[in-house]
Amino acid sequence: MQSRITDLFEIDFPIISGGMVWCSGWELAAAVSNAGGLGLIGAGSMTPEVLREHIIKCREKTPYNFGVNVPLMRPQAAELMEVIAEQKVPIVFTSAGSPKKWTGWLHEHKIKVAHVVSSSAFAAKCEAAGVDAVVAEGFEAGGHNGKEETTTMCLIPAVRRATNLPLIAAGGIATGSAMLAAEAMGADGIQMGTLFALTQESSAHENFKRLCLNLDEGDTKLYFRKLSPTRLAKNGFQALVQEAEDRGASGDELLELIGIGKTKVGIFDGDVENGEIEIGQVTALLKGREIETVAQVMERIIDEYYYFRQDLINQAMEEIPSRRTLR
Amino acid sequence: MQSRITDLFEIDFPIISGGMVWCSGWELAAAVSNAGGLGLIGAGSMTPEVLREHIIKCREKTPYNFGVNVPLMRPQAAELMEVIAEQKVPIVFTSAGSPKKWTGWLHEHKIKVAHVVSSSAFAAKCEAAGVDAVVAEGFEAGGHNGKEETTTMCLIPAVRRATNLPLIAAGGIATGSAMLAAEAMGADGIQMGTLFALTQESSAHENFKRLCLNLDEGDTKLYFRKLSPTRLAKNGFQALVQEAEDRGASGDELLELIGIGKTKVGIFDGDVENGEIEIGQVTALLKGREIETVAQVMERIIDEYYYFRQDLINQAMEEIPSRRTLR
Repeated sequence: MQSRITDLFEIDFPIISGGMVWCSGWELAAAVSNAGGLGLIGAGSMTPEVLREHIIKCREKTPYNFGVNVPLMRPQAAELMEVIAEQKVPIVFTSAGSPKKWTGWLHEHKIKVAHVVSSSAFAAKCEAAGVDAVVAEGFEAGGHNGKEETTTMCLIPAVRRATNLPLIAAGGIATGSAMLAAEAMGADGIQMGTLFALTQESSAHENFKRLCLNLDEGDTKLYFRKLSPTRLAKNGFQALVQEAEDRGASGDELLELIGIGKTKVGIFDGDVENGEIEIGQVTALLKGREIETVAQVMERIIDEYYYFRQDLINQAMEEIPSRRTLR
Repeated sequence: MQSRITDLFEIDFPIISGGMVWCSGWELAAAVSNAGGLGLIGAGSMTPEVLREHIIKCREKTPYNFGVNVPLMRPQAAELMEVIAEQKVPIVFTSAGSPKKWTGWLHEHKIKVAHVVSSSAFAAKCEAAGVDAVVAEGFEAGGHNGKEETTTMCLIPAVRRATNLPLIAAGGIATGSAMLAAEAMGADGIQMGTLFALTQESSAHENFKRLCLNLDEGDTKLYFRKLSPTRLAKNGFQALVQEAEDRGASGDELLELIGIGKTKVGIFDGDVENGEIEIGQVTALLKGREIETVAQVMERIIDEYYYFRQDLINQAMEEIPSRRTLR
């Protein structure tokens, strides 16, 4: 399944697993890479020492390329980058900051760079900063979101027009048909978070996975617009946030609510009632499923992709070749 | 361009123009039908007498099928339906209410029915109620939105699974590539609002069209969640709403803000600073364009669709026929 993304990252399928906090450890990254995609380790919830361990274990588990996701606003971002370079990780995905900051340094260390954007203007900035690929992530994605709230359907065509870079679509993708849809709009590959966060190999707590695999449409919403927009699943913590926002709580009051480590409490420790549960809208599409392995999930997505694509091709072949003229 | 939607409505291209308040008069509906799609008259902003005039004028202007959109919560919904039946309009799109209420009656009058949904559960209800097609409309659409805030990318695969009915995708579609994406996810046709609202034939005020053709990503947001979620473009009125919601205004306080006829003020009368401006997120993709005719817009979309589809087919043809096995 060749594309500019499979070429760039030397992978078989243009499928990347997002580097999500508390979910994307060495096991998940290695499983995705072993299945033919690109696994990312999520450094957002790791100290430099923990990250080093995960990179080493990941390398033991897979002979294929994998990468690390670094949210640039992290206090220890520089130390994380040092570990990545020291360990000769070949690919880094950056987000939550300027692509100009680290791209040059990463390239000096022979590391390929993709940057996550939520607007076409920012995608153009990424191209100017010299990144190798952009990830265009829509409103439906779990966790931190862009202020524009632009959905994947509106964002991909806009970013496709704004840049010639290899383009990875993210947000709301969990089926082969959505993968095909992203390609139809000009994407060269896809990144998925939710689908992989809820696999066996994800390092999230089982309670988190079971909760998310039981959510309905409408059970995730965007909060904290006064601070940094974040998609949360409904639970006790979210109810407190909803109530606070409904009565007009200020940014400072909301900051108190968040506290430190609430995502760890929810996603990693398994207190799904009081912790912060970050997951994408698309979780509703997975409702009722078992917690599957990465291999099962990859096989299904790829099968579906080929099935829907063949359907599209058959439709096209059946049409009368001459284009219908407008009346 | 045959599909279950072109068959159902006897049209050339599976493209429907949404029946939007203040925009979708007889001119727009007739132009879309004359261009090979299905034009809808938006009865939401019409009295029964005004609707009758529009239907008669539309019929004079186009020999092809057109329909009427009726928001069921409208006070005069029953009278609107009587006019539609009296005038032998062949197609009705209903929204904002139960599909069980009017579907039987419309069918008795040999009128085909499509119902607008924002969730897969509601789509299943529509199938049970006997509608002929469902419109699945995502979060990115202008105006009234579903409470779930599910995006088109997440909604279409979910609705496709929930019902076998002919499926029309709506919300965030304004290019041939997005039209192809909707088809990739199993939709049988598309409905577009924003794109058609900003054409010459749209009955909206030129100020509205110019404002919307100058909006950026992030310039529309969802408001009135305490009442009925509505997507508004940024302007003076929206700023008042933002301020009120930020300080926790109640539903009643917000109702006062809305007043009566604010959408008419903005969309029809052209006071784009104080009126309510309802438009979809995808307006940002049209930024900088001239106000084009329906014929120009239809030709571009169809050209783009074929272009992107051929690209997809070429990609598929170049691949090694045997499926790559997972590692």
